[in-house]
Amino acid sequence: MEAFSDGVIAVAITLLVLAIVPPSLETTANTSLIYELGKQWPHYIAYVISFMTIGIIWINHHAMISRLAQADHSILILNLILLMTIAILPFATDLMATYLPADHGQKLAAGVYGGAFLLMAVAFSVLNRHILLYRAHMLSTEIPLEERRRILVRATAGLVPYVLATALAAVSAYATLAICGALAVFYALPIASGTTTQHQ
Amino acid sequence: MEAFSDGVIAVAITLLVLAIVPPSLETTANTSLIYELGKQWPHYIAYVISFMTIGIIWINHHAMISRLAQADHSILILNLILLMTIAILPFATDLMATYLPADHGQKLAAGVYGGAFLLMAVAFSVLNRHILLYRAHMLSTEIPLEERRRILVRATAGLVPYVLATALAAVSAYATLAICGALAVFYALPIASGTTTQHQ
Amino acid sequence: MEAFSDGVIAVAITLLVLAIVPPSLETTANTSLIYELGKQWPHYIAYVISFMTIGIIWINHHAMISRLAQADHSILILNLILLMTIAILPFATDLMATYLPADHGQKLAAGVYGGAFLLMAVAFSVLNRHILLYRAHMLSTEIPLEERRRILVRATAGLVPYVLATALAAVSAYATLAICGALAVFYALPIASGTTTQHQ
Amino acid sequence: MEAFSDGVIAVAITLLVLAIVPPSLETTANTSLIYELGKQWPHYIAYVISFMTIGIIWINHHAMISRLAQADHSILILNLILLMTIAILPFATDLMATYLPADHGQKLAAGVYGGAFLLMAVAFSVLNRHILLYRAHMLSTEIPLEERRRILVRATAGLVPYVLATALAAVSAYATLAICGALAVFYALPIASGTTTQHQ
Repeated sequence: MEAFSDGVIAVAITLLVLAIVPPSLETTANTSLIYELGKQWPHYIAYVISFMTIGIIWINHHAMISRLAQADHSILILNLILLMTIAILPFATDLMATYLPADHGQKLAAGVYGGAFLLMAVAFSVLNRHILLYRAHMLSTEIPLEERRRILVRATAGLVPYVLATALAAVSAYATLAICGALAVFYALPIASGTTTQHQ
Repeated sequence: MEAFSDGVIAVAITLLVLAIVPPSLETTANTSLIYELGKQWPHYIAYVISFMTIGIIWINHHAMISRLAQADHSILILNLILLMTIAILPFATDLMATYLPADHGQKLAAGVYGGAFLLMAVAFSVLNRHILLYRAHMLSTEIPLEERRRILVRATAGLVPYVLATALAAVSAYATLAICGALAVFYALPIASGTTTQHQ
Repeated sequence: MEAFSDGVIAVAITLLVLAIVPPSLETTANTSLIYELGKQWPHYIAYVISFMTIGIIWINHHAMISRLAQADHSILILNLILLMTIAILPFATDLMATYLPADHGQKLAAGVYGGAFLLMAVAFSVLNRHILLYRAHMLSTEIPLEERRRILVRATAGLVPYVLATALAAVSAYATLAICGALAVFYALPIASGTTTQHQ
Repeated sequence: MEAFSDGVIAVAITLLVLAIVPPSLETTANTSLIYELGKQWPHYIAYVISFMTIGIIWINHHAMISRLAQADHSILILNLILLMTIAILPFATDLMATYLPADHGQKLAAGVYGGAFLLMAVAFSVLNRHILLYRAHMLSTEIPLEERRRILVRATAGLVPYVLATALAAVSAYATLAICGALAVFYALPIASGTTTQHQ
């Protein structure tokens, strides 16, 4: 289950680059390569934000799965749904980057982008809650109920910024992008995690 | 063999997203982004159905392979043919989603979609049968012949709905899609499996 | 090294499907979907042949790597070159399938296709020879020199059909395709290998 | 962490082939297939150079990760940033190959290509430095400080040619390509490494 999940996340994160396409020779003949590459800036920013966000989800997913000694059908299916929300992100990222500088569709694209991240965060939260509350006997080391509840409260609180990012798309696409970017930076900072993952 | 199979299935399942392309700025300038995204609904539905179906095949494949202590040439080749039928699904999914709302080719595309699933199910069934009947000595734990026969009968019965889905394409593409979707939901439900897969 | 090689081969084999694209709605409006799908037959055949050939190379690669207890820089680099020849096959396959039914470029495309397979077979042979002759001390179980030479003679003999397939492209593209297809079938047959690969 | 990194690098290295597209039948009808394939030579060269460079980064990455017994949040995040710079290389490679024979944008494209390699080398160096200097207690076998400093000096010296390759893009795109190619060849030579990586 871990190898397959790692594979799907690794492919999805690497497919992000397909949204960044070299400008055609015909286009740059009329303008210039530097101008056309500059025009692609939303794609570069969206690439970095989505890459870091998927990467952080992978870190969290890895930590969650490592706690498991077994996996039953319900865990496999909820995990599959989580992977489905991750695998859609290359599309949502491309959409966001394409419409950010456009004169129409900007807010809807941002809403889809924030919404896709929110969906992924919800799917992660549902799987986490399922494991910690209803499949606690499958954990490799027993975690006290209180500790499990604390993990869940913190995880659920993590949904709030993505709700905000999605809702603010109605006001400004840049607000959505800024929140998603700030979250990626925040989760990358040392304060976001003191966990030491056992290697191999 | 398991790592390679996991890899191929993980790539195939993630490539499904490539069929969902952001509408071009030129198109949405004449209509609107929300209208063009809405028009893509067959792609979203086909994405979910194909993702869940491939994911469930992966779960079953994993369970089948886990039973093996060894693999000989015949198993490797039949497994390769199964992977070949899985890797074609991004094409069949794209075809189905593209032609579902069209005024022509709808039924043929649905037939190809149902037929691709049927082909995958048959390839899975052949491999399963080969292992359980002719390579039983390669299983890591002995399974009584009666139990093996019961597994095979159940697996063969699982082909029937895909035969139906493919045949019904001649009547209605929506019928094919509905059956494939219902099967994905059914196999995702807890009743579909009580198996506890050993983790790692 | 094995995980990375498995990954590259799994991605390359799955990318083959990207050459099979649903016919556009505009095209099929003038003709029909069944006609346009039928016209794609070289892509289906090339997909099957290339998929099986890459799959068989994976089986052989896996067997070769399994014999190793260690890998030094030279093995890693020769392995990398082999992977490079495998990763180019989606291009060669697409080229062959595109030009097979065309009124020009047919033979050159077939030559590139046969040549790409030949290149892969040569790279495999070089790596195999390097391991068996110059890195025999890195094998996990000692193989007598005579046995190693027999493996190498058999492996080198395996290059001959691909030389033939490439050369015959100058006469007929269909001859190249037929030989490559026959080879894939031959290597898939039970007679081609009696080896029992240890699972996991 | 290693499986995920292997996955990302394996996908990125295999996606390089997507930049090599069979010439369209319409184009070759006016010229010829051999002429159009010949015109793609920068894509072939860039494919080989990028494939070998990513492959060598994988070898070094593997050696670096193997030294670790554990990985904390900071290592995971710096590794993620390194993977992000690797995953962008299919774009940089395509850009370089597209603009190398063009009458405009050539030097900028070469600068982006050299710069992308430099960025990757810097990200690698930062992760390496972080592990060897600040996370030395997470190494599986203790390495004396002096030895660790020697590794770092050598690694930092490895950045110089990429700085040169990027800077020389302002003079000639071919100079950039030549340096990147020479580096790939140099690192592939036996003298570049005497390390024996423990297999599996």
